[in-house]
Amino acid sequence: MKISEIGERELLRRLFPIFKRDDPAIILNVGDDAAAVACPEELAVLTTDMLIEDVHFRREYFTAKALGRKCLAVNISDIAAIAGRPRYALVSLALPPDMEVWYIEDFYRGLCGIADDYGITIVGGDLASSPLLVISITLFGVAEKSRIAVRNAAEAGNGILVTGELGGSALGLEILQLEQPRIKENESCFIRCHLDPVPRVREALAATRSGVKVIEDISDGLLTEISHICEASEVGAEIRLTDIPLPRNMRTTAAKYGFDPMQFALSGGEDYELVMTAPIETIDKVMSEIENNTGTAVHFIGTITDEPGHIVLVDEAGNVTTPKDFGYEHFRK
Amino acid sequence: MKISEIGERELLRRLFPIFKRDDPAIILNVGDDAAAVACPEELAVLTTDMLIEDVHFRREYFTAKALGRKCLAVNISDIAAIAGRPRYALVSLALPPDMEVWYIEDFYRGLCGIADDYGITIVGGDLASSPLLVISITLFGVAEKSRIAVRNAAEAGNGILVTGELGGSALGLEILQLEQPRIKENESCFIRCHLDPVPRVREALAATRSGVKVIEDISDGLLTEISHICEASEVGAEIRLTDIPLPRNMRTTAAKYGFDPMQFALSGGEDYELVMTAPIETIDKVMSEIENNTGTAVHFIGTITDEPGHIVLVDEAGNVTTPKDFGYEHFRK
Repeated sequence: MKISEIGERELLRRLFPIFKRDDPAIILNVGDDAAAVACPEELAVLTTDMLIEDVHFRREYFTAKALGRKCLAVNISDIAAIAGRPRYALVSLALPPDMEVWYIEDFYRGLCGIADDYGITIVGGDLASSPLLVISITLFGVAEKSRIAVRNAAEAGNGILVTGELGGSALGLEILQLEQPRIKENESCFIRCHLDPVPRVREALAATRSGVKVIEDISDGLLTEISHICEASEVGAEIRLTDIPLPRNMRTTAAKYGFDPMQFALSGGEDYELVMTAPIETIDKVMSEIENNTGTAVHFIGTITDEPGHIVLVDEAGNVTTPKDFGYEHFRK
Repeated sequence: MKISEIGERELLRRLFPIFKRDDPAIILNVGDDAAAVACPEELAVLTTDMLIEDVHFRREYFTAKALGRKCLAVNISDIAAIAGRPRYALVSLALPPDMEVWYIEDFYRGLCGIADDYGITIVGGDLASSPLLVISITLFGVAEKSRIAVRNAAEAGNGILVTGELGGSALGLEILQLEQPRIKENESCFIRCHLDPVPRVREALAATRSGVKVIEDISDGLLTEISHICEASEVGAEIRLTDIPLPRNMRTTAAKYGFDPMQFALSGGEDYELVMTAPIETIDKVMSEIENNTGTAVHFIGTITDEPGHIVLVDEAGNVTTPKDFGYEHFRK
């Protein structure tokens, strides 16, 4: 059954039971003109992302559920990047009228799955017909003022840390583009990195508890995120290539397809891990606080320098290079 | 110059001075992963709207500035509908890469014009390339719990009030479709109703100060909004056609084009006036509180009845009819 056969109101009536959750902090919910929620904490935090079919994602790579999951995940990751706690989401969908009703229902089931995992309730949004699928999500959260993470507080001498492993998402996307739909079982871990990233909310909270002030989530590639920190903080960075964590089997799988795994780890993007800076004497404490509380590995990959805007890579032999390709930019041909 | 010639980062650099405002309550602003703002009041209110070219608007009817203005106006109106005060906006744009840079700059100038009028600051958003223009705005505001307006508290015997005048926007849209670009000076008032609606924030606050509990903004047409109130409150409504306020010259102008002005006033939508219900003994107080504090006229157009879902129209001669056409619905052919 296509959504053009049932119309907007009936579609909303079918979706409502999928995303409705009881929460006494919600005063007005979907169905009123605006949502109203209690805001007991000091700061309200807000982030939004607009995802467009064939620009940000290809529908054929995702199940409807996986797409719903990832669309919310990228917003959760932005809240993690400032060490906030996500709470409420507004979900707007521009939908082609010939889309199947089950597809939208499954999209919401996936989205609500990760919402439940992170304690998020959907409180509003918008539905409209459109020639192409556009998903715009706004996520509202809370944060403590003294514990918020910024990008402009890195200082020369700070260590640079990353959570998890890098480059798996970019390799997974390449495999999807080359092999889809003939996916091999032993390569599915990279595809999972791309389709189902894990936002690092608890890791960011553990980091700021142990004194970390600077966090970015790695959506556009490690070097792009580090360049944001360097630009905002007026510092430079030295990255040790040998310390960059790659997923298991990444070197052999990337080599099989003729890719450079380090290129993916540095510029691939969409890993949604965290990159952080911390005073060098606190590095051990930060790493153990995150690892003990979340089980997520943390890697010490480099140092902030006092050369503004100057980002260099150091290889095993001690050779120093300056990277050029930082990542994707919209509108540029 | 097209935006594809300068890219996303340079575009953002040019837009930043247009929308940047100093506000000590903003802790993190555009340029960080998420915005963080102080939330000193009891409730956070949130609303979002997604506007798609050729679905919600035609670019040729608007200047870029007027389009920016209206896109924020419709969100402000949703905050007014729950008697909230708008504060911060997130603006996401999906833009065709061949769009001119001046167009986006002018769009932001228009949007910031109305933002300044209503004390709103833009604190975030997203830019992406897209085959068609999509504008998704989320507006964050604050409200007092005891003063929030809902749709489910109308009671039999309540009076029904509307602010301003109805139907002008729908007539203006028809004139734009028929006459564009040969607009006659004496018809420009209707076109202005359509292009530049005035959200009724102060009117809603005055209403709830004088005890009003139920407000809707008229985005989808008077009858649709009243049907929402009736459905949520399990009541009915009787509307007196002779008391529905039409703009000056509307009857003659509509007649010239062969339109029924009352049809526009009942089902046209996009007037962004308020429809409210209030206990009958408070009607005079509510009307004078709104009129004295805002200068906006208020009209008493009908009564809530105890017949759930039953909405009737009463004409000058006392004839009672049941309306059929309630307004626009997405996806339906």
